[in-house]
Amino acid sequence: MSAEIIDGKAIARQIQHELHRAVQAFRKRTGAAPTLRVLLVGDDPASHSYVRAKARTCAAVGVEEETLHLPAETPEAKLLSILQKLNADPGVHGILVQLPLPDHVNTQRILEAIDPRKDVDGFHPINVGRLALGLPTMEPCTPRGIVELLHRSGHSPVRKHVVIVGRSNLVGKPLMNMLTRKTERENATVTVCHTGTPDLAPFTRQADIVVVAAGRPNTLTGAMIRPGAVVVDVGVNRIDDPDAPRGYRLVGDVDFDSVREVAAAVTPVPGGVGPMTTAMLAYNTLLAACHQVEGLPLGTAPVNET
Amino acid sequence: MSAEIIDGKAIARQIQHELHRAVQAFRKRTGAAPTLRVLLVGDDPASHSYVRAKARTCAAVGVEEETLHLPAETPEAKLLSILQKLNADPGVHGILVQLPLPDHVNTQRILEAIDPRKDVDGFHPINVGRLALGLPTMEPCTPRGIVELLHRSGHSPVRKHVVIVGRSNLVGKPLMNMLTRKTERENATVTVCHTGTPDLAPFTRQADIVVVAAGRPNTLTGAMIRPGAVVVDVGVNRIDDPDAPRGYRLVGDVDFDSVREVAAAVTPVPGGVGPMTTAMLAYNTLLAACHQVEGLPLGTAPVNET
Repeated sequence: MSAEIIDGKAIARQIQHELHRAVQAFRKRTGAAPTLRVLLVGDDPASHSYVRAKARTCAAVGVEEETLHLPAETPEAKLLSILQKLNADPGVHGILVQLPLPDHVNTQRILEAIDPRKDVDGFHPINVGRLALGLPTMEPCTPRGIVELLHRSGHSPVRKHVVIVGRSNLVGKPLMNMLTRKTERENATVTVCHTGTPDLAPFTRQADIVVVAAGRPNTLTGAMIRPGAVVVDVGVNRIDDPDAPRGYRLVGDVDFDSVREVAAAVTPVPGGVGPMTTAMLAYNTLLAACHQVEGLPLGTAPVNET
Repeated sequence: MSAEIIDGKAIARQIQHELHRAVQAFRKRTGAAPTLRVLLVGDDPASHSYVRAKARTCAAVGVEEETLHLPAETPEAKLLSILQKLNADPGVHGILVQLPLPDHVNTQRILEAIDPRKDVDGFHPINVGRLALGLPTMEPCTPRGIVELLHRSGHSPVRKHVVIVGRSNLVGKPLMNMLTRKTERENATVTVCHTGTPDLAPFTRQADIVVVAAGRPNTLTGAMIRPGAVVVDVGVNRIDDPDAPRGYRLVGDVDFDSVREVAAAVTPVPGGVGPMTTAMLAYNTLLAACHQVEGLPLGTAPVNET
């Protein structure tokens, strides 16, 4: 058997299409454009490439995006004062600080300085808490994109057993809080495995859906899943490859070739979760704008309207 | 085989003993007493009995406790203004609003009106978020009490598979966020089951430790666990019983008799998790006082000092 390859790029394009319509409608209703500011500190090449992808997606859907590029040595106090200004600016609806930040900056302090209503990454503790409590909130882009990807590819997680490998604050933890909610789109039985799990395979082999966000290539192989499982690969690892044009290539956390022989469906890297994350950022910016400009409750942007 | 009965009462007494010493030391260092205010609205008999237990424990360890008893018809605005005063009072270190509140009160609004630094129940979204993010915070009393109970009874959850039945904001969700943390006392592989789980037994049968917080008697029977499992029963259900002195008796979520024949250890109801929850409330009040009076980082009250 050779698995279906879940085309995250195509699904993200579809979402962009819907978002574009919704953004146009928002502009018509309010005369304003959903507006995002990105803070990019330093010269990390991967960060620059992520930010470029975010800017492209925003442009495609009609979200006004501007990246403030700051030198690596920017003092923390300067970042905090920029955030204060953006928080106070009614023309800015979303603020994103691209991670990682340079070592001299206290990342947590920076993330907590973002107005929670403008926190389109969903990393502010109050938004993390509201997510865990099942309250409407800014939902972090990657886990939100994963749930969206599963539904739109016909692999609903509802009442399924989802095994998450990895407990990061960016993916594993929020995804666990999201998927265990009693909603019509979630309501999954969830197992969370991590570096403290003595043996992964007995867990992953039981999953209907495995989400791997461990940050390590080959964390999941075909021998570790049951036939017919759905596999979502969140990893993005740079592997040296002298034959590749840039001297490296991107691989996920999943051994794609062996998993492909056993799974019913698998997301590729690149072209799986990545484009979904970016689409969800634009979506969150629209949600934030609807909330701030129109007073709509969070999470009620009319995106799927036809 | 007949399981060990984990004596939550005795373990809570031991913690009270340690807390008493720590509170005395705090009083000596600062000249102040850790002080808790409890808001009790209405006449729910179970709530009154919980609050009495909390008051007794506080008295036993030297925490100053005072219950403000308000009539069921107290308007929300009145509760909010009381909370404002308590928030502003430097002589009050912990505030607890006994749940449930009457229907005309927005519970979430009340919980969010408590200063997070005084939120000894750990229910404020910012504290819930900090817990999920692995940051120091006020940890909710029941899940915290469960982790403590497991350790002190010799059943560490570290690197074990813990299956949690129930996803409430009071127990299941925070316990899942707590046990998946990479700490020396947690670091468990966690599965969360709930009403959306089609069949519980295949999950509970694999657990090293099962925590049942479903709010329904007989949710777990002996046939649903593996021999040697450890079972923690968080349920408190009132069952009509004409032979009992009050016309009812308390049972947990676990079918104690059948589980006892299979498990290695099980907590009783009453006398298991309940006393631990109350002890943790006094502990949190001391933590809050150390933080507010002495400026200690949260979670660093010197309780186990000898």
